[in-house]
Amino acid sequence: MTRTIRSRFSKRSLQALRKVLRFNDQGLMPTVIQDAKTKRVLTLCYLNEAALAKSLATGTVYLFRRSQNRLMQKGETSGHIQIIQQVVVDCEGKALVFLVQQRVAACHAGYFSCYFRKLDTGGMLKITDRKVFDPKAVYKT
Amino acid sequence: MTRTIRSRFSKRSLQALRKVLRFNDQGLMPTVIQDAKTKRVLTLCYLNEAALAKSLATGTVYLFRRSQNRLMQKGETSGHIQIIQQVVVDCEGKALVFLVQQRVAACHAGYFSCYFRKLDTGGMLKITDRKVFDPKAVYKT
Repeated sequence: MTRTIRSRFSKRSLQALRKVLRFNDQGLMPTVIQDAKTKRVLTLCYLNEAALAKSLATGTVYLFRRSQNRLMQKGETSGHIQIIQQVVVDCEGKALVFLVQQRVAACHAGYFSCYFRKLDTGGMLKITDRKVFDPKAVYKT
Repeated sequence: MTRTIRSRFSKRSLQALRKVLRFNDQGLMPTVIQDAKTKRVLTLCYLNEAALAKSLATGTVYLFRRSQNRLMQKGETSGHIQIIQQVVVDCEGKALVFLVQQRVAACHAGYFSCYFRKLDTGGMLKITDRKVFDPKAVYKT
């Protein structure tokens, strides 16, 4: 059994990031969520400043869900939250990477990563992962 | 010495992607570039449809440089091109991951990855990589 390392960041952390980050013209910061253990890219999400503040303070990923126009915790319905281990900033302050510990799976379709379809050179999109949970059972309502 | 696997994709590949991709309202597709060997995230770039077509056909990354409003090959000045090994599509068709072989380094600041600054929990941004090339020597003009 491995111990979960959850990084909760001080208030100074948000101040430090504010100095270098340049949110896009919709006030959002594209953030690559990467599994700390396997290094697989899990998903790409968008954080506004409130979501970033909440993510840093709690050590779990919060995002701005554009389709619903609201702040939410990643995994709030499913319980499949993401525990932040590292926050890494790009050279231009236009994107972040969060290295996380993923509970169960990141994708609402039942796969560990949202990137479960691989393009082959002949032009076929192939599912290369197996499902790790049943979306119908998890998202009942 | 390891052999470079460069994947050149057929015209059918672009057609297959067109069916599932939803470019954003600026006509761009956010694409996470990940090093195939180390699995490090190298950069996040934005491809319009022409850049995607050219990337697939050549097996090297082309992008739409928003600040210059033009199509360019990643690494065209430095020679630090990215050779595509895998193309992976997210569940909603809103983002891609390219697994690549990186020549020299991805970042214009001289680091292997654009994500060379790590936030510590006390609020300090620390450079955690070493430079692998001298930007002044590479970008002379």
